[in-house]
Amino acid sequence: MNHKIRIGILGYGNLGRAAEILIEKKEDMELKAIFTRRPEAVKPLRKEVEVVSTRDAKDYVDKIDVMLLCTGSSNDLPEQGPQFAKLFNTVDGYDNHSRILDYRKDMDEAGRPNQKTSAICIGWDPGLFSINRALFESILGQGKSYTFWGKGVSQGHSDAVRRIKGVKDAIQYTIPLEETIEKIKAGQTDDFTSRERHERQCFVVLEEGADADKVREEIVNMPAYFADYNTEVNFTSQEELEEKHSKLFHGGFVLRSGTTGLSDENQHVMEFSLKLDSNPDFTASVLVAYARAAYQLNQAGQYGAQTILDIPIKYILTRPIDQAYRDLI
Amino acid sequence: MNHKIRIGILGYGNLGRAAEILIEKKEDMELKAIFTRRPEAVKPLRKEVEVVSTRDAKDYVDKIDVMLLCTGSSNDLPEQGPQFAKLFNTVDGYDNHSRILDYRKDMDEAGRPNQKTSAICIGWDPGLFSINRALFESILGQGKSYTFWGKGVSQGHSDAVRRIKGVKDAIQYTIPLEETIEKIKAGQTDDFTSRERHERQCFVVLEEGADADKVREEIVNMPAYFADYNTEVNFTSQEELEEKHSKLFHGGFVLRSGTTGLSDENQHVMEFSLKLDSNPDFTASVLVAYARAAYQLNQAGQYGAQTILDIPIKYILTRPIDQAYRDLI
Repeated sequence: MNHKIRIGILGYGNLGRAAEILIEKKEDMELKAIFTRRPEAVKPLRKEVEVVSTRDAKDYVDKIDVMLLCTGSSNDLPEQGPQFAKLFNTVDGYDNHSRILDYRKDMDEAGRPNQKTSAICIGWDPGLFSINRALFESILGQGKSYTFWGKGVSQGHSDAVRRIKGVKDAIQYTIPLEETIEKIKAGQTDDFTSRERHERQCFVVLEEGADADKVREEIVNMPAYFADYNTEVNFTSQEELEEKHSKLFHGGFVLRSGTTGLSDENQHVMEFSLKLDSNPDFTASVLVAYARAAYQLNQAGQYGAQTILDIPIKYILTRPIDQAYRDLI
Repeated sequence: MNHKIRIGILGYGNLGRAAEILIEKKEDMELKAIFTRRPEAVKPLRKEVEVVSTRDAKDYVDKIDVMLLCTGSSNDLPEQGPQFAKLFNTVDGYDNHSRILDYRKDMDEAGRPNQKTSAICIGWDPGLFSINRALFESILGQGKSYTFWGKGVSQGHSDAVRRIKGVKDAIQYTIPLEETIEKIKAGQTDDFTSRERHERQCFVVLEEGADADKVREEIVNMPAYFADYNTEVNFTSQEELEEKHSKLFHGGFVLRSGTTGLSDENQHVMEFSLKLDSNPDFTASVLVAYARAAYQLNQAGQYGAQTILDIPIKYILTRPIDQAYRDLI
């Protein structure tokens, strides 16, 4: 590469801050600016990094090679994504599975006519898990794939509990059920219900005077989030929550069992698994790696929205390609 | 796709036969012909499949979309690969890691000027393991990757034992060492010696009158194959070998532990693992999936040698691409 890839970060929450730390350690990248709605609140690690109001981003089109979109999937990315994709090569972790086709179309139509490249839905799920779901079913056609999450903190479920009246703070752990995993590895290809796949565990701090039983009932019966699972609700103090339940660890795995042979006599198990001390750190690590891809795809004239299924692995490598062929293949 | 992908198989050993069974079950493929040095010895599963002498393959350039090269890496592929890559789109499982750059060059120079596409070094290692070695180190820059094989049958090591004077038949199992794996998962990034990573277990049938102690000594001291490992040698009868040690099961995993965070405070473990009842069946499954890629890359005008790092996952999919974006991402 001729020069360091000049990176911008949009959004300075957990994900943006994790990305900043990573980029500062990369030899092939340089963090140029952080874009945020509240520039006055941001102090970058290195003082040369500019802190810019989001609305002034358009002034930076010639100074940034790739913009990491570190804002939220539900409220921010559906609008911000296409706006930024018109101006910059981008990488995002859009994760609303049910709207992926629409988002891909919006991002593609924003970037392609402007000769910009967007790596979309990048992270571990969607992202690395998507690669493996696609690999597994394409290779082992006769079989069934399963995705399990945890043990780890689900931000969405923690937020859902925090929104309940009488709850001051809360954290929710998603836990995959060993018994079901063992059945799958032994070759069972049942559908398995949500309840058979995961259980949920909540640690809740109550507001003063709140009714614990009522809160518990509201949690375990919450549709979509908890009603279909066995949920354990524990009450605790704010101090203990902060002391024992503050780490955003997570993980999970994609598992496929399938058969081959004239009479399906051979069974095979494929598995991809992650065990992560910090969900934001690891997600940012994937975004940063795919910033290389967005940049190189753009250099190669491949514009528009690119999912992780469209991008050859070679574009995220840190090694020279011949060295990768020799040492990694 | 407009028509079924027309497949040819070169070589009718374990791998070629496994590929035949798989292709006969695929809806998007049609097995047209098997190419072999001894056509008189081959009886295909379906009588419409032609059995052709290898030297007549050139007459089939218009009848075959992709040729699966199911012959050996040491003696056959270095010559046969480029010969076939001039005439056909090909997929091979070339696995001589130390000569990969040369092989890639030979295959590229054979195919590219003839507008043919070759997917090279396809299988699980090299192949799926290569994808993961590349993904892991590109994403988790601060860390160390390890590849473990087994428990499973190593054909190369079994052959090496069989070549010893006094040995009638033999099988060799490669076994990864749990103790070392646990250390890596806990965050240790030592190099670990060959002896610390794997142990070897042999089951040997002696020729009549052979000296067991001499055979044992020769095995455990064999350079490269056994001298650097702890090796257990068991003697058995031909009947028991065939009864208890005839399955070509295998497996293994790629493992990386690494850290992120300002002071490297967060540890992450990435793992990709396979547990395979039949090594030839699974290897053939990967070759067959990448036949789709060789065909589609060729249609897209991407000629020459393509490793698994160069090929986007989307080209091996059986699903329509929009359905894959929606359901697999």
